[in-house]
Amino acid sequence: MKELKVELGERSYPIYVGDGLLNDIATTLAKHKIGTKSPLLLVSDTNIAKLYLEQVKSLLEAGGYRVATAVVAAGEKSKSLAVMEDIITVALEAGLDRNSAVIALGGGVVGDLAGFVAASYMRGVRFVQIPTTILAHDSSVGGKVAVNHKLAKNVIGAFHQPEFVLYDIATLKSLPEREVRAGLSELVKEGFILDRGFVEYCDANAERLLALDSEALEHALYIGCGVKAKVVSEDEKEGGLRAILNLGHTIGHALEAVAGYGELLHGEAIAIGMVGAARLSEKLGNPGSIAVETERILRKFGLPVRIPAHMDTDAIMSAMMHDKKFLEGTMVFIIPTEIGKVEINKTVSIESVREVVERLKRED
Amino acid sequence: MKELKVELGERSYPIYVGDGLLNDIATTLAKHKIGTKSPLLLVSDTNIAKLYLEQVKSLLEAGGYRVATAVVAAGEKSKSLAVMEDIITVALEAGLDRNSAVIALGGGVVGDLAGFVAASYMRGVRFVQIPTTILAHDSSVGGKVAVNHKLAKNVIGAFHQPEFVLYDIATLKSLPEREVRAGLSELVKEGFILDRGFVEYCDANAERLLALDSEALEHALYIGCGVKAKVVSEDEKEGGLRAILNLGHTIGHALEAVAGYGELLHGEAIAIGMVGAARLSEKLGNPGSIAVETERILRKFGLPVRIPAHMDTDAIMSAMMHDKKFLEGTMVFIIPTEIGKVEINKTVSIESVREVVERLKRED
Repeated sequence: MKELKVELGERSYPIYVGDGLLNDIATTLAKHKIGTKSPLLLVSDTNIAKLYLEQVKSLLEAGGYRVATAVVAAGEKSKSLAVMEDIITVALEAGLDRNSAVIALGGGVVGDLAGFVAASYMRGVRFVQIPTTILAHDSSVGGKVAVNHKLAKNVIGAFHQPEFVLYDIATLKSLPEREVRAGLSELVKEGFILDRGFVEYCDANAERLLALDSEALEHALYIGCGVKAKVVSEDEKEGGLRAILNLGHTIGHALEAVAGYGELLHGEAIAIGMVGAARLSEKLGNPGSIAVETERILRKFGLPVRIPAHMDTDAIMSAMMHDKKFLEGTMVFIIPTEIGKVEINKTVSIESVREVVERLKRED
Repeated sequence: MKELKVELGERSYPIYVGDGLLNDIATTLAKHKIGTKSPLLLVSDTNIAKLYLEQVKSLLEAGGYRVATAVVAAGEKSKSLAVMEDIITVALEAGLDRNSAVIALGGGVVGDLAGFVAASYMRGVRFVQIPTTILAHDSSVGGKVAVNHKLAKNVIGAFHQPEFVLYDIATLKSLPEREVRAGLSELVKEGFILDRGFVEYCDANAERLLALDSEALEHALYIGCGVKAKVVSEDEKEGGLRAILNLGHTIGHALEAVAGYGELLHGEAIAIGMVGAARLSEKLGNPGSIAVETERILRKFGLPVRIPAHMDTDAIMSAMMHDKKFLEGTMVFIIPTEIGKVEINKTVSIESVREVVERLKRED
């Protein structure tokens, strides 16, 4: 078992990564001073609930906790104010009070949704994350929680740090292959941002990671979460530095929005977005090898590196304008300047972006 | 013009109180580094919009600001996630970004709702309050913002401090008499909590206050906001002390919930709740004169001091159990121990509360 501390002063919290950690969930809660007097709310989705909900609930009840459960439909559509309201109905009916905690059992959708419930219920109760996907390593570090609006993703939310994150890699073994690939996309992204050595590790160990080898996964999640934790510690509220975590996300989010949340998995959209950012880097005068290398590694993980040709360029550009990162009329891009290093760039022209998008649609 | 500082470290902000301050809204925004590059969102309700929306919008536009407006139906029902979502649609369509600000022009409902929009939009943008009721003096100090759930009031929200509060007492002159009385209820409450001298001032100047005399109102709002600011400064997140501001609110909120948000104005429900708290004080062994004196002063302001006889006691008790202040099965009451002094009491039995409620229904 590895333990990683996310340093945020009073709001610091640990991430536990290891095989079989779920079995200790009740003692871990107790260790974090979450008592048994007030009920807990366990939030999950239809896919994960089938596999683990009863198990986690029983483990908690065996530890003396009263547990209310809310199971939402799997998928991005559950990240809505309407679903949030339904979950709060469950919380109120179960008598959750200010000393209660909300536990997210699932991937990024469940974490974001349950996290925003925890941030808002009675103006904030404690929050625990049990991520069950590789992708969720990303959303489980940093306290960004949110739901979607029909016009834009993640646009209604808060910063709400968990008490702890419990990453049981045993739960990852049931992931569909496509989700494994998409999750590894965001994990290798942490390397592209700040850690060339980690990119090299992922490059060298792609097969082990794709085969969900326990040792490789534990190491990669520990390092990947560590990169993210380092950035978040230095910039909790996304004043500046934290924006680098959005490598690939400006184009990626736009693709997801145009695809209607589903055609592309988040990690797939981000993979395409990372290639886009590397292409923009070349336009800004950096070596073309960055884009070539980025693409080669992402292809090794079986990830898409081109925009589906049927997607409308105008729609993609318009979705980008609604992005939170589009500040005071300026496009803000995270641009790789070498493998393992990025800069925040505000000089990218709308025309260059359109050209890159067009090329990524045309090429094979 | 009086200026009061709410001391909250990095989140400190001023409250400006005076006659005609709205005329300077654009320069006040500029002084607070809210620039003209990003659009503003001005939120109001149907009642206030009729009186002031065009005026405020013109003043802002004259100062170079682009202004989107969202007008919600007057009344507590607008404090919902659904209305919040509609406002966010306006914000997105107008292109509000992270450097934008949301301005609440109205009473407590508009302030709470627009404040929660500001807290959540893109995980938090700046917020400005222009309260147009006396009651809103309370919600405009302390950063508590929220919407309602059908099962409980203010149960979905955040702590989000404004950049500044601009209290133009000229806008109070259009208030209906019943709202003036209800607003003064919450204002004199600040005295009952912490400032006997202010209770005496209100007692001696009840007629001037009811007649909306500018000088008396400016003084009373300044002192009332000051009491609240003092408490909030010492306990921003309601860890302990801040709870004293809830004098009269445990019973008051329950009455509002049972009455269906509307039969009783908030300040009226709080007036009855303050009498209830004083009666509980007597049951705990404090002098009966506290309840007598509380009642006398509130009657002077034409406020109700009895529970409407048709309200169901069980429903009132059950609503109290859903209150955020009902912690781990313990009733938490704010109890006056003399005029101008309160304590946080967790020893009040459910039976005593029921007796007080029953008596307040039966008496004339």
